Amino acid sequence: MDGDGASSTGATPSEEMNGTGNLMDFLDEPFPDVGTYEDFHTIDWLREKSRDTDRHRKITTKSKESYWELMKSLLDAWSGWVVMLLIGMLTGTLAGVIDLAVDWMTDLKEGVCLSALYYSREQCCWTSNETTFDDRDKCPQWQKWAELMTGHSEGPGAYVLNYFLYVLWALLFSFLAVSLVRVFAPYACGSGIPEIKTILSGFIIRGYLGKWTLLIKTVTLVLAVSSGLSLGKEGPLVHVACCCGNLFCSLFSKYSKNEGKRREVLSAAAAAGVSVAFGAPIGGVLFSLEEVSYYFPLKTLWRSFFAALVAAFTLRAINPFGNSRLVLFYVEYHTPWYMAELVPFILLGVFGGLWGALFIRGNIAWCRRRKTTLLGKYPVLEVIVITGITAVLAFPNPYTRRSTSELISELFNDCGALESSQLCDYVNNPNMSRPVDDIPDRPAGPGVYSALWQLALALIFKIVITIFTFGMKIPSGLFIPSMAVGAIAGRIVGIAVEQMAYHHHDWIIFKSWCRPGADCVTPGLYAMVGAAACLGGVTRMTVSLVVIMFELTGGLEYIVPLMAAAVTSKWVADAFGKEGIYESHIQLNGYPYLDVRDEFTHRTLATDVMRPRRSEPPLAVLTQDSTTVEDVETLIKDTDYNGFPVVVSRESERLIGFVQRRELTVAIKTARQKQDGVVSSSVVYFTEDNPQVAEACDPQPLKLRRILNLSPFTVTDHTPMETVVDIFRKLGLRQCLVTRSGRLLGIITKKDVLRHMAQMMNQDPESIMFN
Amino acid sequence: MDGDGASSTGATPSEEMNGTGNLMDFLDEPFPDVGTYEDFHTIDWLREKSRDTDRHRKITTKSKESYWELMKSLLDAWSGWVVMLLIGMLTGTLAGVIDLAVDWMTDLKEGVCLSALYYSREQCCWTSNETTFDDRDKCPQWQKWAELMTGHSEGPGAYVLNYFLYVLWALLFSFLAVSLVRVFAPYACGSGIPEIKTILSGFIIRGYLGKWTLLIKTVTLVLAVSSGLSLGKEGPLVHVACCCGNLFCSLFSKYSKNEGKRREVLSAAAAAGVSVAFGAPIGGVLFSLEEVSYYFPLKTLWRSFFAALVAAFTLRAINPFGNSRLVLFYVEYHTPWYMAELVPFILLGVFGGLWGALFIRGNIAWCRRRKTTLLGKYPVLEVIVITGITAVLAFPNPYTRRSTSELISELFNDCGALESSQLCDYVNNPNMSRPVDDIPDRPAGPGVYSALWQLALALIFKIVITIFTFGMKIPSGLFIPSMAVGAIAGRIVGIAVEQMAYHHHDWIIFKSWCRPGADCVTPGLYAMVGAAACLGGVTRMTVSLVVIMFELTGGLEYIVPLMAAAVTSKWVADAFGKEGIYESHIQLNGYPYLDVRDEFTHRTLATDVMRPRRSEPPLAVLTQDSTTVEDVETLIKDTDYNGFPVVVSRESERLIGFVQRRELTVAIKTARQKQDGVVSSSVVYFTEDNPQVAEACDPQPLKLRRILNLSPFTVTDHTPMETVVDIFRKLGLRQCLVTRSGRLLGIITKKDVLRHMAQMMNQDPESIMFN
Repeated sequence: MDGDGASSTGATPSEEMNGTGNLMDFLDEPFPDVGTYEDFHTIDWLREKSRDTDRHRKITTKSKESYWELMKSLLDAWSGWVVMLLIGMLTGTLAGVIDLAVDWMTDLKEGVCLSALYYSREQCCWTSNETTFDDRDKCPQWQKWAELMTGHSEGPGAYVLNYFLYVLWALLFSFLAVSLVRVFAPYACGSGIPEIKTILSGFIIRGYLGKWTLLIKTVTLVLAVSSGLSLGKEGPLVHVACCCGNLFCSLFSKYSKNEGKRREVLSAAAAAGVSVAFGAPIGGVLFSLEEVSYYFPLKTLWRSFFAALVAAFTLRAINPFGNSRLVLFYVEYHTPWYMAELVPFILLGVFGGLWGALFIRGNIAWCRRRKTTLLGKYPVLEVIVITGITAVLAFPNPYTRRSTSELISELFNDCGALESSQLCDYVNNPNMSRPVDDIPDRPAGPGVYSALWQLALALIFKIVITIFTFGMKIPSGLFIPSMAVGAIAGRIVGIAVEQMAYHHHDWIIFKSWCRPGADCVTPGLYAMVGAAACLGGVTRMTVSLVVIMFELTGGLEYIVPLMAAAVTSKWVADAFGKEGIYESHIQLNGYPYLDVRDEFTHRTLATDVMRPRRSEPPLAVLTQDSTTVEDVETLIKDTDYNGFPVVVSRESERLIGFVQRRELTVAIKTARQKQDGVVSSSVVYFTEDNPQVAEACDPQPLKLRRILNLSPFTVTDHTPMETVVDIFRKLGLRQCLVTRSGRLLGIITKKDVLRHMAQMMNQDPESIMFN
Repeated sequence: MDGDGASSTGATPSEEMNGTGNLMDFLDEPFPDVGTYEDFHTIDWLREKSRDTDRHRKITTKSKESYWELMKSLLDAWSGWVVMLLIGMLTGTLAGVIDLAVDWMTDLKEGVCLSALYYSREQCCWTSNETTFDDRDKCPQWQKWAELMTGHSEGPGAYVLNYFLYVLWALLFSFLAVSLVRVFAPYACGSGIPEIKTILSGFIIRGYLGKWTLLIKTVTLVLAVSSGLSLGKEGPLVHVACCCGNLFCSLFSKYSKNEGKRREVLSAAAAAGVSVAFGAPIGGVLFSLEEVSYYFPLKTLWRSFFAALVAAFTLRAINPFGNSRLVLFYVEYHTPWYMAELVPFILLGVFGGLWGALFIRGNIAWCRRRKTTLLGKYPVLEVIVITGITAVLAFPNPYTRRSTSELISELFNDCGALESSQLCDYVNNPNMSRPVDDIPDRPAGPGVYSALWQLALALIFKIVITIFTFGMKIPSGLFIPSMAVGAIAGRIVGIAVEQMAYHHHDWIIFKSWCRPGADCVTPGLYAMVGAAACLGGVTRMTVSLVVIMFELTGGLEYIVPLMAAAVTSKWVADAFGKEGIYESHIQLNGYPYLDVRDEFTHRTLATDVMRPRRSEPPLAVLTQDSTTVEDVETLIKDTDYNGFPVVVSRESERLIGFVQRRELTVAIKTARQKQDGVVSSSVVYFTEDNPQVAEACDPQPLKLRRILNLSPFTVTDHTPMETVVDIFRKLGLRQCLVTRSGRLLGIITKKDVLRHMAQMMNQDPESIMFN
C-alpha cells in the first residue's frame, strides 16, 4: 500500500477510486530513506518472518558457545512473556486510574465532597458514617454546587444554578480534551480501532502508538468521558493498551526491530484493552482474534490470554468499581427465561440491526460531510457545540444526566425487594413476605410509568446525538453508547412484556409458562439482550460479543437469548450493508486494509490487475549484466518504486530476481566511497559468475548479487485474482511479480489488489451478499 | 502426501525416514481412479476454494433469473446453519444417550435396581420413596448381586461373589466392545483425535467418519467406559461428533462435493463434541480452534459456536447428570485462594508436566512395541487381559471401583457440613453452629487418613494402567484418566496443605493469611488445579484447557491458579519433548500432518528438497506441441503421479502449465471415443493457437488447452525452505513447481516437505527448543 515495487510510471490511477483514495494518493508520494520501513508503508510479513528466523538461528547457534550466551538466549525466549506481563500491568493500572478519575470528574459536574475533595459521590457517601442503609441516597458530606454556593438545595434557583454549572463543567472538560488533542497528539482522537486494525494488518503509521499519544489519549479520554458526551471508553482503551504494547516493544530488540513480531505483541495488547474495558479476559482475547487481529498465531493466543488476565487482575487490585467483582456490569438474575420470550428477544435483535445500519449510514454520511465541508476546519468549535447541546438536553432527564455506564448498570439490574430506584417502583403486595429474590411479577407503580417516558426520550436523544458524536476530534468509543441505546430499548420492551404478562396471564401466549404470582419476566435481562443486539449491529462482532456478555452475567443460562439477538441483529444489519462501523471508517479514511472476511468472487485474472497497463510505458527493470551504475542512479532518481525486478536481458525479459531500492542505494553509495574503480560507467552485475573484464581500461565492475532477492514471489498472468487475493492475504505480501513462462510481464502491489477489489465491489455490490 | 505431482521415478525415498513412514510407504502405491480425491490423498485447498467460488458464482448469477432460483440460492446460503443445527442436535442426543447408558451399565457391574431394571443406582435411589436425606446411601430397591442371589449383603462370601461378578461383567463389556470394533468398524478404535487432526489438515481417510464408524463407536464407547477400563469418553465423543458432521454433509452438495467446505463443518462438529463432553461450549470452540483445526476461518468460528451451543442445550434437555447444570463437574467454592498457595499449585503443575512427559513416552513406547511385536496380532486378547487386570485391581479400592468421572467429581467437591463421604470425615468442633458454607479448617478424622492411603494406591494404579490402556483397539479417550491422576494428586496435596495450615498456623508461611478458625484451604480446588495440570501436560492444551476449567467452575476467581498450573505443566512437559500425545500418535502412525506450530528454522533451500535429486532420472513432463497421444498414455501407464507439468519444449524446459493426471486420462478417453481422427499418433496440443496441420494425411491433433492449469504454483530454486513450508501451510498446497528464470527444475510435494522436516528434526532436535 505504497509506491511499492517497480511498476510503470505514468498517471497515478488513484482517480479511479472515487472517495476512498485520500490517504492512498498521499502514499504515492516519494519518501526519504530512513528506518526499516517508511511511514505509511506496508510491511512484508514473509520477509519479517524470515528475518526473525535468522535472528533466532543466530541466537541458538551462539547459545552453545558460552554460558553467558545461553542466558541471553533464554532471556530472549522469555522476553515475550515479560512484555505481556508489563503490558497487562500498565494497561490495568491505566484503566483503573481512568475509571477513578472519570468517576470523580463526572460527579464534579454536579457537586463536591466536603470531607475530601478527591472523593467521588459514591466514595464520599460510603465513607460517611452518617449514611444509613435506608437513607443511602442522602449523605450530608456530598453537596451539590447550588447547596454549597447558596445554601439552598431545592427550588428553581438551585436547579438553574446546578444546570448552569453542569453545562459549564461539561464545556470546560470537552474544550480541554479537544485542545490537548489538537495541540499535542492529533492521533489521540477517535476510537482508534480502525487504525489499529490497519496497523495490525501490516501498515506503518509512525507515532500512532507513540508515548505522546498514550499520555494525551489517557488524559483526554478522562476529560471526554467526564464531559458527559455520548461516548465510551472501551475503544480508546484498546488504543491505550496498544500504545503500552508499543512502548514495551521498544525495550526488546526482538520486537522493536521486527515489525511482524511487534504486531504479535500489539494483538495481545488489544486483548488486554478489551479485558480491562469490560473485565472480560476471555472476551477480550476473542475480540482481538475476531475483530482486530490480522495474523494471530496460536502462540499469540496464549500470550494474549496471559496479558488479558494480568490486566484484569491489576484492575481488580485497584478496584475502581468499589467491589471485588471483576466485571463492569455484574448482574445476577433469579429467573430462567422461557421459549416464548424468544419472540421479544428476536425483535430486539431486529431493532439492534436497524440501529446498527442507521448508525453506520448516518455516522459515515456525517463524517464524510465533516471531511469535505467547512465543518472539518473547526474541530474545536464542533466539539464545543455538540457538548453544549448534549449537556443542555441531558441535564433535565435523570437517565441522561448521570454517566452512561451507570445508566446501563441500572437498566441491567433486576429489581430486588429493597431497590429504591424509580425503575423498581412496583406496587408491592402487602401480604408478600419473602424478602429477597424470587419476587413475583407485580403491577407497575407511577414511578415506573414516568421512568418509561423518560427512558423513551433518552432513547431518542442517545440515538441522534451518538451519530454526531462518534468521529469528533476527541477520544470516543461507541461500545457504551450503543449498549445504552439497546439497554434502554430492551428495558422498555421488558417492562411492557412484564406488565402484559401480569395483567393478561390468561392470554394464550402467557398461559403455558406464566401463572399468576410467579416471577416470569426479568426486564433487566431484556436490557442486556437489547444491549448485545445494538452492539452487534454496530460492530458486527459475534462470538466475542456473546462471550463478553456471558462473562458479564457469569452464567451460561442466558446465552441463548443473547445469541438469538446477536445473530438476528447481525443478519438484519448485514442486509443493509456488509461492513461494520470499523470497516466503514477504514474505507472512509482510505486505509489500505485487506479484509480477511471479504471474499473475492470475481472472475478477473492477474493480467487484468497488473501494471503496466496496456497504454502505460514498460516496467522499470534492471538487467543482470548490462546496466551501468549511472543507469541505476537515474532510475532511482526518476522513479519512487521500492524495488526493481532484475531480468536476464531486455530482449528475453526472463526474471532472475528482485532488488530493494533501499539496498541498491546503500550498496552503490558504499561502493563509490570504498571500492576503487567504481565509476558511473561501471557495469552492475547480478550474475553468479565473475564477470569477465574484457580489457584493462574498462572500469571496475560492481557485483551486487548479494543484495539480489533470488526468490521473488511470482504468479502467472492467468492466475485468477481470487487466488492472488488469497496469497496476498495469507502470506502478507507487499508485491508479486507476474510472469508467463518465465518472462516478466508486470507487477501487482497490495495497493493494486485493494484498488481492484474496490472497483469490483462498486461494479457489483451484491455479489458478496450470500456469503 | 501421496504419489503426488509429476516427479522423478526411481527408488522411493521413504527409507530415509525411519520409523515414521509406514502409512507414507503405502501412499506411494498407485490408486484406482474414483471420486474427486483418492483415499489417503491430500486435498488442494486452493483448488477446493476456487471450486466453491465457481459454484457460488453460478448460484448467484442464476438467482437473478427466477424466483425459484433465488429461493434455491437462499437455501444454499442457509444450509451451513442447518447443518450446524442438525449436528448439534444429534451430537447432544448421542452424548445424552451415552451418558445414560454408561451410568446404567457401570452400576450393572455391582448390582441391579429391582423397581426398574433400566434404572441406574442413582435413579433407583432417587425414585425410591423410602430414601431419606440422612440415609441416602442406603436404598432398598437397589440390590447388589450377592444380596440378590444369596440373600446376604455382608460377609466374605458376598464380597467374593460381588468381586467375581464385577470382573465378569467388565470382561464381558470389553470383549463385546473389542469384538464389535474388530468385526464392523476397525476405525472406531482409539480416541480419534489424531486422525481427525490429520483429516482436517486435508487428508482423506475414506470411511473414517462413516455411518458404521458412528454407530459402532457410539455402542462400543458405552461398553468400553462401562467396563471400568481407565479411559474416558471425551476424545471419542469428538470423533462421534465429526461422524455426525460428515453424515449431515452428505445432505448438501455444497459440502459433500467439496472437501474444503466439508472440513469447515467438521471443525465445528469437533467443537460440538467437546462441548457435550464437558458441557463447555466456549471451551469446545477454543479446543477446536487451538487443538484440532487446521483452517479455521472466522465464519467457522461463529458456526462452531452455534453448533456447540445447540449440542450443549440438547444434552441439557436430556439431562443425564440429573440436575439442571450444564457441566459435568460443577463445583462452587466458598473460599478465595491466597498468594502463598501458588507454591503448591505450581508444584502440581510440575507434577502434571512430569506425568504428561512420562505418559507420552511410556504410551508411545508401548504402542510401538504393539505395532512391531506379536502383541499387535492379538488385540482382543490384549483388551481382555488389560480389562481383567484393571477389574481385579480396581475392585478392592473404593476410589477405583466406581466410574472415573464420579471419582473426579468427588475429588473436586468442597466438603460441606453434611457431606457423608470418607474424604469429608473431619473432626467437627461440637460448638460450631454455622450449618452450611464457610466451615473453618478442621483436623482430619480417621476416614480422611484411610482415604489418603487408598487415594495414593489409586494414583499409582491409574498412572500405570492408563499408559497401557490408551491405544488399544477400543474407543478410548484420555481426558478423564489424565484428569483423574491430577485430581487424586491434587486432593492429596490439598489435604496435606490444609492439615499443615490447621496444625501449624503459627508458621511464617501460614501466619499472614490463615488465622485459626478460618477456612483457608479448599482441597477440592487443589484437585481441580491438579487435573488441569495433568491434562495440560498430556495434551499441551493451553487456552482451551483454562477456559474449559473456567466453565466448569463458573468463576473467574480461580483462573489464576489454573493458569499457573497449566503454564508450568506445559513448560515442564515441553522440556521433555515438544509434542503432545496427539502429535506423538500422528507421528507414530506416520500421518501426513503439517503442524502449524512447528517452526521450520533451517537454512535449506527449495533446491535441496525438490525432486528429481541429482542421481535420479529427469522429471516426467509433457511438451506443449510435440507429445503424441501414445506418449501420454505410456507416461500415464508407467508413472503414478497425480499430474504432469507442461513445458514449451524439452530443450527450453520453460514451464507453461500443469495438467492433472485424472483430467488427462478422461480427456484422452473421451476424445478417442467421440472425436474422429484421434489416434495414437495424434499430437497433443496445449498451445493457445490452433495447430497448423501441415498435411492432410497427418492424424487429427488433440487440443487439450482447456484442461491445462495455466497458473501452477511456482517458487524459485533459491527460495528458503522456511518460506516454502509457510506457503504449503498457509495456502494448503499439494505440490509446487520449482523453476529458475522460468525453466522448470523440479517439483516439491507436501510429502517431500514433511519428509524434509522430519529429516531436519532428526539432525538437530534442539533447534526448535526456544520457540
